[in-house]
Amino acid sequence: MDKRPIGVFDSGLGGLTAVRQILKRLPNENVVYFGDTGRVPYGTRGEAVIEKYAKEDCDFLLQHDVKFVIAACGTVSSVAPHILASLPVPAIGVVEPSAKAAANATENGKIGILGTSATINSGSFVKALKAVRPQTEFYSQPCPLFIPLVENGWIHDNDPITTLTVERYLKPFKEAGVDTIILGCTHFPLLSSFISRYMGNDVTLIDAGEEAAKACEEQLKALSLENTDGSGQCQYFVSDHPKDFAQIAEIFLGKPVQEQVKIVDLNTL
Amino acid sequence: MDKRPIGVFDSGLGGLTAVRQILKRLPNENVVYFGDTGRVPYGTRGEAVIEKYAKEDCDFLLQHDVKFVIAACGTVSSVAPHILASLPVPAIGVVEPSAKAAANATENGKIGILGTSATINSGSFVKALKAVRPQTEFYSQPCPLFIPLVENGWIHDNDPITTLTVERYLKPFKEAGVDTIILGCTHFPLLSSFISRYMGNDVTLIDAGEEAAKACEEQLKALSLENTDGSGQCQYFVSDHPKDFAQIAEIFLGKPVQEQVKIVDLNTL
Repeated sequence: MDKRPIGVFDSGLGGLTAVRQILKRLPNENVVYFGDTGRVPYGTRGEAVIEKYAKEDCDFLLQHDVKFVIAACGTVSSVAPHILASLPVPAIGVVEPSAKAAANATENGKIGILGTSATINSGSFVKALKAVRPQTEFYSQPCPLFIPLVENGWIHDNDPITTLTVERYLKPFKEAGVDTIILGCTHFPLLSSFISRYMGNDVTLIDAGEEAAKACEEQLKALSLENTDGSGQCQYFVSDHPKDFAQIAEIFLGKPVQEQVKIVDLNTL
Repeated sequence: MDKRPIGVFDSGLGGLTAVRQILKRLPNENVVYFGDTGRVPYGTRGEAVIEKYAKEDCDFLLQHDVKFVIAACGTVSSVAPHILASLPVPAIGVVEPSAKAAANATENGKIGILGTSATINSGSFVKALKAVRPQTEFYSQPCPLFIPLVENGWIHDNDPITTLTVERYLKPFKEAGVDTIILGCTHFPLLSSFISRYMGNDVTLIDAGEEAAKACEEQLKALSLENTDGSGQCQYFVSDHPKDFAQIAEIFLGKPVQEQVKIVDLNTL
């Protein structure tokens, strides 16, 4: 039993899809979330900048006495896993859990990977998939437009612009006949209905945030770090508070943020 | 006569459209460019963060002994004009020069303004237009999707996704019958052909970067700060160097970057 909170961070608010899964699966755990909204996005940046930001994000969570860190960010999980491995508490990203789930789900051995440019360039998911299932065909696609489409809320009523963008990115997957797709960025589950409509409902979509939450649950059990006595309290921190914060946060969290959201001064990171 | 360089900065590489105009109009002037690619975009952030970044960008240029500063960034020009006004050298943004040009260009007095969310929320262009031409009807439209569309290079061959996005954003302008549109972000001139195709060629597009370059030319003359002896040397600095830098830079500059591009450590800003 360990009453300390679970720390979750992301470059922005997409990681709230992982928090949503934690609150669902582990209702007694308390959570500290940090969204680096003052420096989002990470996925188009170079490695050195991503490493620096990841380290500062982890340090911020450690200052809040977390017992476990989840990098709910495909980019950090892909480019800076060594930062996670060097922390004084157990830490996971979204890559290994998603790779494991995809390897279990695929029947024809053809797996598609969607992510930011940095995630895809890093080859992280391919490497993790090869480790758990060497006989697999991989198809990778960077999808930089998905994030602004989600953040603009163009995700309703078969939006024609989002539909066309999904078709453009996923055409190679359809042609290759992939039966499993890793949504390697925590924004992408919001586009699940578009992806399934184009690919067909028999194609399995792996939600990186959900798989990270499951892996966290397993590790907390294995390490006897569970909190069976908590009330699912959440603390939210962001490094910038844009006007449309509440609206975007609700998209990802699936409910309004009730708690006060605190702003972290970028100078102190 | 003043041989010191002109300093130009932007949140990213869009400001290179202004550099392109300076090199064309003022071939003897040397230029120092800073693109804050490690923290781009500014247009979706809150005011305090934009002010902080703008101040650091200006300080960086001043360290390079510039005689004049151009904020080739609609967001900084709109949200942090007081930072520009406080510098020890003359400085301009893109708002006033574009407002003046639009006021001169319109015949029916109906002007549309396109910009980032921060730019439109600030009301900066409307305020500047009211100052130069009070009897004007204004229509404003934030266009957050334009920047990633341009940076992904989806700007060729009547791209259907970009065409639909332009139509969605500009429909209110068409219905209102605007005859002049301010492209209030240095990325947007790359979408001129899409905008003109939808709006019609008789609608005048005002290029914010070009108008800033013209205003700079006028002020250098008025203040006797021109360099008649230089060779148009450019120094380029960025705070992150993504893999596709050269490709994106060429889109904006209209030619390949020949000079070495130096990386600025974000910790030193």
